[in-house]
Amino acid sequence: MTDHLLGMTGLSKVDIFRYLDVAQAFVEVSERDNKKVPDLRGKTVVNIFFEPSTRTLASFDIAGKRLSADTINVNASSSSMQKGETLLDTVRTIESMNPDVLVIRHSESGAPHFVAKHLTRTAVVNAGDGAHEHPTQALLDLLTIRQHFAAEGRGLEGLRVGFVGDVRHSRVARSNVWAHLALGNKIRLIGPPTLVPADFIKVFGSDDVSVVHNLAEGLQDLDVVVCLRMQLERQDQNFVPNLDEYSKEYCLSERLLMRHAPRSVVLHPGPLNRGTEISGEVADGPRSLVLRQVNNGVAVRMAVLSILAGSVESRTMSLGR
Amino acid sequence: MTDHLLGMTGLSKVDIFRYLDVAQAFVEVSERDNKKVPDLRGKTVVNIFFEPSTRTLASFDIAGKRLSADTINVNASSSSMQKGETLLDTVRTIESMNPDVLVIRHSESGAPHFVAKHLTRTAVVNAGDGAHEHPTQALLDLLTIRQHFAAEGRGLEGLRVGFVGDVRHSRVARSNVWAHLALGNKIRLIGPPTLVPADFIKVFGSDDVSVVHNLAEGLQDLDVVVCLRMQLERQDQNFVPNLDEYSKEYCLSERLLMRHAPRSVVLHPGPLNRGTEISGEVADGPRSLVLRQVNNGVAVRMAVLSILAGSVESRTMSLGR
Amino acid sequence: MTDHLLGMTGLSKVDIFRYLDVAQAFVEVSERDNKKVPDLRGKTVVNIFFEPSTRTLASFDIAGKRLSADTINVNASSSSMQKGETLLDTVRTIESMNPDVLVIRHSESGAPHFVAKHLTRTAVVNAGDGAHEHPTQALLDLLTIRQHFAAEGRGLEGLRVGFVGDVRHSRVARSNVWAHLALGNKIRLIGPPTLVPADFIKVFGSDDVSVVHNLAEGLQDLDVVVCLRMQLERQDQNFVPNLDEYSKEYCLSERLLMRHAPRSVVLHPGPLNRGTEISGEVADGPRSLVLRQVNNGVAVRMAVLSILAGSVESRTMSLGR
Repeated sequence: MTDHLLGMTGLSKVDIFRYLDVAQAFVEVSERDNKKVPDLRGKTVVNIFFEPSTRTLASFDIAGKRLSADTINVNASSSSMQKGETLLDTVRTIESMNPDVLVIRHSESGAPHFVAKHLTRTAVVNAGDGAHEHPTQALLDLLTIRQHFAAEGRGLEGLRVGFVGDVRHSRVARSNVWAHLALGNKIRLIGPPTLVPADFIKVFGSDDVSVVHNLAEGLQDLDVVVCLRMQLERQDQNFVPNLDEYSKEYCLSERLLMRHAPRSVVLHPGPLNRGTEISGEVADGPRSLVLRQVNNGVAVRMAVLSILAGSVESRTMSLGR
Repeated sequence: MTDHLLGMTGLSKVDIFRYLDVAQAFVEVSERDNKKVPDLRGKTVVNIFFEPSTRTLASFDIAGKRLSADTINVNASSSSMQKGETLLDTVRTIESMNPDVLVIRHSESGAPHFVAKHLTRTAVVNAGDGAHEHPTQALLDLLTIRQHFAAEGRGLEGLRVGFVGDVRHSRVARSNVWAHLALGNKIRLIGPPTLVPADFIKVFGSDDVSVVHNLAEGLQDLDVVVCLRMQLERQDQNFVPNLDEYSKEYCLSERLLMRHAPRSVVLHPGPLNRGTEISGEVADGPRSLVLRQVNNGVAVRMAVLSILAGSVESRTMSLGR
Repeated sequence: MTDHLLGMTGLSKVDIFRYLDVAQAFVEVSERDNKKVPDLRGKTVVNIFFEPSTRTLASFDIAGKRLSADTINVNASSSSMQKGETLLDTVRTIESMNPDVLVIRHSESGAPHFVAKHLTRTAVVNAGDGAHEHPTQALLDLLTIRQHFAAEGRGLEGLRVGFVGDVRHSRVARSNVWAHLALGNKIRLIGPPTLVPADFIKVFGSDDVSVVHNLAEGLQDLDVVVCLRMQLERQDQNFVPNLDEYSKEYCLSERLLMRHAPRSVVLHPGPLNRGTEISGEVADGPRSLVLRQVNNGVAVRMAVLSILAGSVESRTMSLGR
């Protein structure tokens, strides 16, 4: 029976902290002169991305290589899939080459779960599936938040966390909400009714999630603001009538944050649309944790690959070198 | 004088068995916890693919990395070729970077042979050229067949092997036929006259190759059925009037195999068109060796790279670790 | 304060010779049986190419791997840039993953300089920016020239060097001219007025650069002829009325060289347009150093990566193994 990381749904607080603790230990590795540890030497990690990606693919690739794994990047847009092969045949083919971990990104929600159910020897990591989940993003967001509040003597619990923007289509928001619910935090989903439908929270089945359509009101007293990327193609789909108008109402500005959530920090999964969902002043300002998120991303992926490839028991030793 | 693997044509039984024996020794490496051997440490393998490929490229890439070689994948569709450079200038440029092995896939028959003739220090492996040859596929097919029949106390010789489908355009069939002729096996080419022309066998110049246009008749008493991929674009070229009709006559079904070749095993080079040339029942059934083929593909490519990069003498030692 | 290699402008003779000396020591590494040295073990090199490239990308990739660095190739055409991200956000994201060196190619002049100014911990290498600079190409050209003339007991100084063809759009020419000026050489820019405007030399501010529009006259007594690639799309932009006519006047032929610069050697950055700017006879003849340039390219990039990643002090030791 192989372990996978398919989503934050169903992960307990203990599970989450295990990932974060191992990840925190890896943060320091990437700051060394020699950034390589032998943990996954002789292991094979295959990254198969059915959607284009720069940052997530590079992050997994670097994570695998710093662990001394062999990493193989399969560009699935130029792959056999285009020759009519089924997803299952593609991944079974990959599995027959004896990878230890398969990292998959796919535009269809549930694709990694389907794959994991049918593979027998390979750990599967969901690197983003449709509008469904993106668990390593949620973990790196949590690690970033934890580091920030640790400096203030606070933990990851008892926080008020808001998600601003296109919540409806955001796998980042979804994975984060599940995680914050497991940690017992209060969550506010903020955006226009087309992007944050009032009945949307039913899926989470928790009173800890609320919906607010007005940005100023939504920001009130938040500890953490997760600003979501506005996918520009949504405009054509009538979710947003006009980007300029959208920005007037929902672009995160320093002025608004100062007034309503002066002690909050801001996260964004990237890539940024400056001036659309986030002002340059916020993105580059002192409350922005955006680059720290990217930095933690490598550490989180090192942790996930290590844990799933079964090398975590040897961690202390290799970190000690 | 550098050795190459350009095709199965001209390989003797001894040559073939040498590749298979080394490959068989590598099968076990990919099942270890540490899948890496030091055989090609410090060597450079360049994979230059002028046709898109997922499985073959990934297989060579993994093979090179498990041998500790540095592997470089050159995507030739975005390459200098598009800027008007000749094939020869491209590969001479690559050779000037001191690779040890150049793995080449090209849509033109004979391209790897042309390249090999003009390079002076680099071993060339043909990873598929037009409708001509695909020798590593033939070797992995042979290894798969040998493993299967060894369990029954039989060898690779004295077999009846059939190829079903688009034989005319298949480099897989061509390489396999040359190999089975060298081994003294009986070969049947099965398909409609447009895809298996009656005079097609002349090229092999052997009475051991026959053509049968009826599937049931062709399957009769076969030990091995190699089902070929139907390239869907052929339909536009009038080789196949209609895929539905084609499938009715030539799709490999469990019922047909049970009746005519009950002890046969089935191979397919992938990717599969389920329901077109092979039924899902056969592909997923007990007589299918499809995933075993993929698995053996890595071992065969490790063997080919090792032998051509001249490290085979040290094999016993590294396998022994 | 991090060192970068952004262009040849501003490099002193001492700087240039330092790169060449380290590179020369690396030439021999790529000819060994084991082509790997441990110099950059545990370091990360990211190659981010916003323009397609085969040879330069492969050269940097091989150089990084032979130094034992982890190399990550980011295909920026399928990257976040396409999602509206700014160049600065893209490279800051990459920097947050802790690379040691960022190798960047970009169609806009000055992009690497802009990037270097804003990154704080990453060494930046310009792998070609617009029509501006391509410093590793200039260094490999110099190394190639030095090796050639050393055999004749001459050095890199006191040479007459000509650049033939599309000088106006050539970053190769520009970087080379700056370098030869630093070395005190005489430079001739040769081509039609549309491609070598008379006032073009003002930018170099030196009497050592002259413009000649007639090929025969320009070649007279040259020691080195650098033949530039004719970018075929220029024709549409009215720089060249007709390629055939262009070739009649400016294609480098053995006959012309024999008559006007019989002892000269010929370089070309590749890829070659045979018959357009260079005859096949010259490209494949004894005065052509084209493949030697490619070979030196790997050594030069190993030197640049080593020096910028700060490992050069340990060079003697690792070369000695």
